[in-house]
Amino acid sequence: MAQALYDRESMDRFFRPRSVAVIGVSRTTGEGSFNIVENLLGYGYPGEIYPVNPNASTILGVTCYPSATQLPAVPDLAVISLPRELVPGAVRDCVTRGIKALVVITQGFAEADADGARLQEEFLGALAGSGARLMGPNTLGTVNVFERFSSSFMRIAQTAPLPTGMVCQTGFFLATNLAPSVGLGLAVDVGNAVDITLPECLAYLADDERTRVLAIHLEGVRDGRHLFEVARKITPRKPVLALKTGRSPAGAQAAGSHTGSLTGEDSVYQAAFDQAGILRMADVEELDDSLKAFLRLPPISGDRIAIVTATGGGGIMAVDACAEYGLKLARFSEDTIAYIRADAPSWFEPQNPLDVWPAAIGRPYALAFADMFRKVLDDPGVDAVLCVGGAVAATGEQLASFIRLSGEVHPNKPVVWWVQGREAQSRAFVAENDSHVAVYASPERAMRALARLHRYHSSIKDRIPPRAVEFPEVAAERAGGVLAASLSGFMGPEAFDLLQAYGIAAAPWAIAESPAAVGQVADHLGYPLVIKGLGPDLIHKTERGAVVVDVRSQRAAEQAALAIAERTGALTGILVQRYLAGGHELILGGKQDLQFGPTILFGMGGILAEVLRDVSIGLAPLAREEATGMIERTRAFHLLSGVRGRPPADIESVVDALLRLSWLLARHPEVMELDINPLLVFPRGEGCVAVDARVRLAKRKSGPVARMTG
Amino acid sequence: MAQALYDRESMDRFFRPRSVAVIGVSRTTGEGSFNIVENLLGYGYPGEIYPVNPNASTILGVTCYPSATQLPAVPDLAVISLPRELVPGAVRDCVTRGIKALVVITQGFAEADADGARLQEEFLGALAGSGARLMGPNTLGTVNVFERFSSSFMRIAQTAPLPTGMVCQTGFFLATNLAPSVGLGLAVDVGNAVDITLPECLAYLADDERTRVLAIHLEGVRDGRHLFEVARKITPRKPVLALKTGRSPAGAQAAGSHTGSLTGEDSVYQAAFDQAGILRMADVEELDDSLKAFLRLPPISGDRIAIVTATGGGGIMAVDACAEYGLKLARFSEDTIAYIRADAPSWFEPQNPLDVWPAAIGRPYALAFADMFRKVLDDPGVDAVLCVGGAVAATGEQLASFIRLSGEVHPNKPVVWWVQGREAQSRAFVAENDSHVAVYASPERAMRALARLHRYHSSIKDRIPPRAVEFPEVAAERAGGVLAASLSGFMGPEAFDLLQAYGIAAAPWAIAESPAAVGQVADHLGYPLVIKGLGPDLIHKTERGAVVVDVRSQRAAEQAALAIAERTGALTGILVQRYLAGGHELILGGKQDLQFGPTILFGMGGILAEVLRDVSIGLAPLAREEATGMIERTRAFHLLSGVRGRPPADIESVVDALLRLSWLLARHPEVMELDINPLLVFPRGEGCVAVDARVRLAKRKSGPVARMTG
Repeated sequence: MAQALYDRESMDRFFRPRSVAVIGVSRTTGEGSFNIVENLLGYGYPGEIYPVNPNASTILGVTCYPSATQLPAVPDLAVISLPRELVPGAVRDCVTRGIKALVVITQGFAEADADGARLQEEFLGALAGSGARLMGPNTLGTVNVFERFSSSFMRIAQTAPLPTGMVCQTGFFLATNLAPSVGLGLAVDVGNAVDITLPECLAYLADDERTRVLAIHLEGVRDGRHLFEVARKITPRKPVLALKTGRSPAGAQAAGSHTGSLTGEDSVYQAAFDQAGILRMADVEELDDSLKAFLRLPPISGDRIAIVTATGGGGIMAVDACAEYGLKLARFSEDTIAYIRADAPSWFEPQNPLDVWPAAIGRPYALAFADMFRKVLDDPGVDAVLCVGGAVAATGEQLASFIRLSGEVHPNKPVVWWVQGREAQSRAFVAENDSHVAVYASPERAMRALARLHRYHSSIKDRIPPRAVEFPEVAAERAGGVLAASLSGFMGPEAFDLLQAYGIAAAPWAIAESPAAVGQVADHLGYPLVIKGLGPDLIHKTERGAVVVDVRSQRAAEQAALAIAERTGALTGILVQRYLAGGHELILGGKQDLQFGPTILFGMGGILAEVLRDVSIGLAPLAREEATGMIERTRAFHLLSGVRGRPPADIESVVDALLRLSWLLARHPEVMELDINPLLVFPRGEGCVAVDARVRLAKRKSGPVARMTG
Repeated sequence: MAQALYDRESMDRFFRPRSVAVIGVSRTTGEGSFNIVENLLGYGYPGEIYPVNPNASTILGVTCYPSATQLPAVPDLAVISLPRELVPGAVRDCVTRGIKALVVITQGFAEADADGARLQEEFLGALAGSGARLMGPNTLGTVNVFERFSSSFMRIAQTAPLPTGMVCQTGFFLATNLAPSVGLGLAVDVGNAVDITLPECLAYLADDERTRVLAIHLEGVRDGRHLFEVARKITPRKPVLALKTGRSPAGAQAAGSHTGSLTGEDSVYQAAFDQAGILRMADVEELDDSLKAFLRLPPISGDRIAIVTATGGGGIMAVDACAEYGLKLARFSEDTIAYIRADAPSWFEPQNPLDVWPAAIGRPYALAFADMFRKVLDDPGVDAVLCVGGAVAATGEQLASFIRLSGEVHPNKPVVWWVQGREAQSRAFVAENDSHVAVYASPERAMRALARLHRYHSSIKDRIPPRAVEFPEVAAERAGGVLAASLSGFMGPEAFDLLQAYGIAAAPWAIAESPAAVGQVADHLGYPLVIKGLGPDLIHKTERGAVVVDVRSQRAAEQAALAIAERTGALTGILVQRYLAGGHELILGGKQDLQFGPTILFGMGGILAEVLRDVSIGLAPLAREEATGMIERTRAFHLLSGVRGRPPADIESVVDALLRLSWLLARHPEVMELDINPLLVFPRGEGCVAVDARVRLAKRKSGPVARMTG
């Protein structure tokens, strides 16, 4: 990890301060008083504590100071918890005293109202040029269970530290000890993140040797590209799990008013997570489930799952769950089958799922279960085992001890349990602590956790992030020329020139100045042709009657142009373009995303686009395998691969076009939006061509986004 | 409920026997011995118990008998738990003694091997004509917590009975006390269901006044239609929740070997559930969650949800969950907003989700939360409230007592909680017992439960099941004539006659005997035409070059016919059909489903069918609103409604065709499969026509399913 991603000395002050000033500490103590000094004493924080309160001389026996300026030493960190009006003054005092790290707990700034925004400007002004860093506002700050510290006013559960590093945009996971099954190690609530950002904290926590698994909660980040760049460097070393909330439009709106920032599009976050190797969690339960799997289980070496069950009905539910999460049912070896058959009733046929109950008829059940479990786990065709247990044929103690033991049998194969029934579950959730197994309340949750583990160990761990292909500089120069010559905020036919500069072919075209000139242009291009009227108000050309297709002669071309002119009034020109039939209609798009910068979109065009809403997104510039993945992720891939006797499409040429488009967007940030719709792709070997394109440019006089043709 | 669905006297013997014989009881007792007599004594079963064991004189102080024939009285029920070889003899003994109800616990019959199947035939033979009924084999039998009875060899938790009635195909839910949050009332594991069936038990449990909510676990039923008919009569009175497992292909296969029956297609079960008003549960956790909601919460009168949260971050997660399950965020009234604003900081803007923490600044937090909660719950624009709680700013006791109180405030509005954090959750799950609230471990689960509640109370409770339209008898007569004249297992062009008998129009067509006769037929039909070769091996006509479209003259028609004959060899005839262009291609299908009888399928045709896999299914005969619903449930509906300037399609004509097709399948069970592909539907007012159809008939000499045209 490049050191430049954060300043270690500065971050250490927030996460492991040797001394801390608590500015605005309450004089009341006990339940419900939310007293930070009391909390620190309770944790056994070993550093120096400086309470600041002008109205008290000591708090809980600790000497108080009237203001930060009067502190006897410069603490590593100041935690400010004051009414918002007093925050700018306190920040000023801290800076004056030379304090280099500040947590602002207080809320009610830019996320609240205009007064709050003004106060925020004020304290940021006080900070400027001081070299001090600020966390928050609107935050609980940091937690370090290893070193018994937290800046939170809510009491943090400081039990045995776990190797978890969590970065949140809420104090919720700090206050609730991360998740029901998994507690905190190092954690931070970045709050409104006006200075210290989420990616900085993530990079810092990833470099701490005490973390093994990282988790992010985020509602939206301003610097999504930074998060992406930081995360893709971490994920080959440590798993990063992300709970992105505000995923619905209503949720995004609520998130905006929560932290005062625009959240961006959920689909772009999803793309960034996928490309960076971040595992996205659907909800708080999946976060808990996956954390548990990564913390407790050994790596999984494949996707072949065995199910050992005390109930036939439960075994079938486990098979459904296995299929739902894309895992495979293991096939037992002949040896395993023979071993199980030997002691089972004559009619019993060993198979996966292994229903242990009938297989154990005539033997002590618990012993038989353990015996068969070991045999199955040892099968070289089995990568992991799900055990189904519950109140079935075992007392609570038996179940608990067997859960613990089951994690000791094979150090390199994950064992998970689905336990059903209230009492059995509560025993099992105790038994799993400090064990090498993970217990779940449903087979779906168990299989999902195994699937996430498999995804990580099969395709993220130790991977070398793919590198984008470098395109020749000449393309950028040529495109730069086209862009410089562009006269307005959107591009007309010169969009084709822009694409061609990057080697994306367009259907042959030319402009005729007037209907009378169409014939000559037409003869030059060859037939069949499509004739399209050009003009600033001709956005929806087909609906306006400004398009005539399949024109097969000079005379027909001239007549078509005259008819269009008659129907639409004034034209600025007439686009004459080769008419290409057949092929699949695709959409290739690109935009400068507010959070993530240049992004590329792929999807089906035409009517299918309306019905399917089946698109994939990638962050530019793309590597070849990323572009291929974008196509393969869509259902359109099935169609392009050839169905119902149709020949397969030239997918390689589309991959190529995606790469070129991604480079264009990455190299030319002034290209705000670019849509090729449709790109026609022909059978394999015959390539693809842009038939219609639209481009919106930045920093020009504003105008409507104009469709160039079509 | 019609009494004919089950025989009450007979079912009472299974569920509330006044006396029970336990045949094959073990002499060993204590943990792990699975002794049914010991269990019954443990429950405090008040009836007479007759253990049957030739090697014991008493068991736990109860007198034993050597065989069922020697019992001193005729018990209501006999429970048989013997090695499988001894079961036929035991059944014979019971029948001899006049016992009318038998539970066979033993497994290893038809689901296992040929010997098992033979033994099953044997005991069924012993039963025949006796008037006795049999439950199982391969079952735990029944549970009645109200009357302290169970036939299970696993000890059933007999705590306070709950108003739940559950019918399962596994003993799992009996052994694990149904679900973590909800216990048993009346329950049954029907096992292999060779005599007493799942629908019979469901009807019986639904009629018991002690049940309020019914649940089904099923892997597959032979008599799906019976289940459908029974359930649709129950659902307007009591909610029926179903956990259908074996939903994946691998799961279905495992289910087949579990209970020895074909499970059928998951999509047909889904259709039957929807049409019968059964709420399908995704997994064991949803079953628990929904049972809890239906048992503890009052009816919900709308879908407007308020979120009252102790954490802004958690509130956003709740908003996402609200959107995910199709619920709406309530808008607070002016009165509510003014009330909350009055005591909040000046910059605080009350909105939904209501983040109580900043709103409570300056006040005792717990009181402020309770106060705002009450105000929001009373808002007439709020139908239900989700509270987000956890370790946030409340001790465990405070949380628990507030959870209980929150259910007492408003008797007619559901209150649910999402509680985060291990300790807080375990306290909350205790607090919810005997309360009128439901606590969940994630906002998704809470919102999903509210959504199920809303679905039930808005569209299933008290509904009158829609009635299918009756078609004129003349259609059935005409179709009967066509079917009688059919010569083989599949239909050629006479499939169009069959459709037309039910008023489904086909594109005008005629058969020419030879290429030479095509011209005259063509002139008679008018142009443009499509010419198709007919022959037993011409299934895939297009690929074989047996189709020529857009034929516009007599001469072209003759040439097309000759060319087809040359390419394909021997033809049995030539189909000449009007060539219709434009319109949307649809698929309408029907089949006699093995489990559910006549079913109808609707979906997009053509290339879209390959990519979308977007079909809906209904059980025939259909009511008009059911047929409309089938179309509206697909994404194709969006396309048919008119996109991108296209006119809306004639959906009413497709509804009509679905109704007619459903009647055809329902009236003519010999029509095993019928596909119209495509049915072309034109713009509104212009109807739809079948262009191609295939039919497979039952009870004729077998042959390949022949595509008639296309």
